[in-house]
Amino acid sequence: MIKQIAVLPGDGIGPEVTGEAVQLLEEVGIQFGHTFHFQYADIGGCALDKTGTPLPEETLQLCRESDAILLGAVGGPKWDHGPGEKRPEAGLLGLRKELQLYANLRPVIVFPALANASSLKAEVLEGVDLMIIRELTGGLYFGQPRGRKQTDQGLAVVDTLYYTEAEIERVLRKAFEIARVRKKHLVSVDKANVLDSSRLWRETADRIGKEYPDVKLEHMLVDNAAMQLVRKPSQFDTVVTENMFGDILSDEAAMLSGSLGMLPSASLSEDGPGLYEPVHGSAPDIAGQNLANPLATFLSVAMMLKYSFHLEKEAQAVEQAIRKVLDDGYRTRDLAQEGEPALSTTEMGEKVRAYLKQEISV
Amino acid sequence: MIKQIAVLPGDGIGPEVTGEAVQLLEEVGIQFGHTFHFQYADIGGCALDKTGTPLPEETLQLCRESDAILLGAVGGPKWDHGPGEKRPEAGLLGLRKELQLYANLRPVIVFPALANASSLKAEVLEGVDLMIIRELTGGLYFGQPRGRKQTDQGLAVVDTLYYTEAEIERVLRKAFEIARVRKKHLVSVDKANVLDSSRLWRETADRIGKEYPDVKLEHMLVDNAAMQLVRKPSQFDTVVTENMFGDILSDEAAMLSGSLGMLPSASLSEDGPGLYEPVHGSAPDIAGQNLANPLATFLSVAMMLKYSFHLEKEAQAVEQAIRKVLDDGYRTRDLAQEGEPALSTTEMGEKVRAYLKQEISV
Ligand SMILES: [Mg+2]
Ligand SMILES: [Mg+2]
Repeated sequence: MIKQIAVLPGDGIGPEVTGEAVQLLEEVGIQFGHTFHFQYADIGGCALDKTGTPLPEETLQLCRESDAILLGAVGGPKWDHGPGEKRPEAGLLGLRKELQLYANLRPVIVFPALANASSLKAEVLEGVDLMIIRELTGGLYFGQPRGRKQTDQGLAVVDTLYYTEAEIERVLRKAFEIARVRKKHLVSVDKANVLDSSRLWRETADRIGKEYPDVKLEHMLVDNAAMQLVRKPSQFDTVVTENMFGDILSDEAAMLSGSLGMLPSASLSEDGPGLYEPVHGSAPDIAGQNLANPLATFLSVAMMLKYSFHLEKEAQAVEQAIRKVLDDGYRTRDLAQEGEPALSTTEMGEKVRAYLKQEISV
Repeated sequence: MIKQIAVLPGDGIGPEVTGEAVQLLEEVGIQFGHTFHFQYADIGGCALDKTGTPLPEETLQLCRESDAILLGAVGGPKWDHGPGEKRPEAGLLGLRKELQLYANLRPVIVFPALANASSLKAEVLEGVDLMIIRELTGGLYFGQPRGRKQTDQGLAVVDTLYYTEAEIERVLRKAFEIARVRKKHLVSVDKANVLDSSRLWRETADRIGKEYPDVKLEHMLVDNAAMQLVRKPSQFDTVVTENMFGDILSDEAAMLSGSLGMLPSASLSEDGPGLYEPVHGSAPDIAGQNLANPLATFLSVAMMLKYSFHLEKEAQAVEQAIRKVLDDGYRTRDLAQEGEPALSTTEMGEKVRAYLKQEISV
């Protein structure tokens, strides 16, 4: 298999973790007989500095022509005070919107070797394996009108939560498809007791659900979902929700595992390239020091292999190598207990590649 | 002191828990020499059934003429399928709006006697004592326009997040006032990297903050706040946020204690009557069976004594009685471990009143 991959290292620790991920993909290529071509482009703060926009046209063009996109992270204190459209985050929002990456997949996996890092009790984490699917291109973060205006009551401000039925339908459909290859249990999260958009969401879920009689559909209010994720996360298999609720719930759920440095994500469109990135962000405080944990980016690579290239075996080999590295006690600084030795970014990268090679050759 | 209290028992277990709370207030009156007058009115599903509206005009009138309002709970499966304005929840939303109950206070207290009920590790719960202040009458749950419309892209739906600067200012001011009598640390939660409304919120917080130089103001993004509440809840003292974020975060935080049946709330206006209600909702599955836990309503009574009547000593006596009842091992069914004996609603009510009496007479 030959694939074109756009690599957008971005800001902070982005270049370090994507650098290791590219090497990992090259190793996967060698071991399984695939050829991955990598082309690089800027996004976020570094793009702002060079071109004055966080999402240059040539970056967008490169992404459009690629089979998949690997992204590091965007943002940092340096760019925190510009206007909305001059923020690094605007680059990522723009990319999602332009490529119609409407389905954000956020798996929460608990690695037994790391479970003690969680603030939750071990017995509560048992059996946790959930996938949150967040609508990513509509809703409150994109709706018009928005902004400030003078009114009879003085200054006021507005943001708009807007969805077409078609936007709601396509992400729900994706969620049913994913639930179908998981444990066939889909929880649709909304605020249907208050919001008009949520009532359309719920009706649409019920209607689409009829096409997936093998998937058990359940509705849950967002505030209750926020509670249940803490109370008993193992009750969830697949969860689908709109953009803003998904933003909050997926980050809450990410914290369950206790290891934010371990969590990958995928953002999928109907038939264009998927975007794969770690959840952890740009971590400017440790950037450039060879301290970052590359494992979330490696797990994002596994998602790329699975969801964009349909290379199940290769994806599993990457996940398996990571599991074994952890089981054997190797840790980056963020995962190490006090006093425990820690690997650097590059050392962890080498270790995972070595385990992958070993695994294949067995 | 003579006070008029409007009692709105509502649906489900509401009548049982408010019934006990009224008796507790009467005991407080006897012990401390106050007179509380109680007048009853309907709200929610029971009001819908009797009058066709979840918030009858006479209920609103009674509330307006009272010094404080004690509410049980609204809602139940019986009324789940009506249109938006015919839901029991619309009664509560309407009451908040009409009385301008813009500041919702949601304390999260961990009772050492109950800490083992939490899904979080004991060491993570240590020192948790936080107060979330949620803006309650503006934002996405009330903004116009809202509803469905036909567009070029087919059916679409809209909800509107709208705030005036004055609405933002008054709740922030209330939060600074409350932080000032707590540990002087206020976290203001927003989504300023994406939402226009959040950017005005953040600017306003910075501006009002200058009037409270003794309070340390910190800004936190809502998704990060959702994480931090799970990771290390003891880092928070006072938290303030807009309506929808507050809805989600306060319920997430409620679950930290492991005992939703224990959490009170207050909703305050500028100078009208405050509304006091337990967080737990109407629990229709156990309604009418004398099984409900009245302690959250009792703690709401303590908040009423403190915030509406400024009866600090009386409020503390109620809280103290509850703590002692728990320390002595008394539990309602929701708090009891398997096999442990459990008190009924009325038995728990009697027990707390007895402890209160005993305490005063010592
Ligand atoms: Mg987020
Ligand atoms: Mg709620």
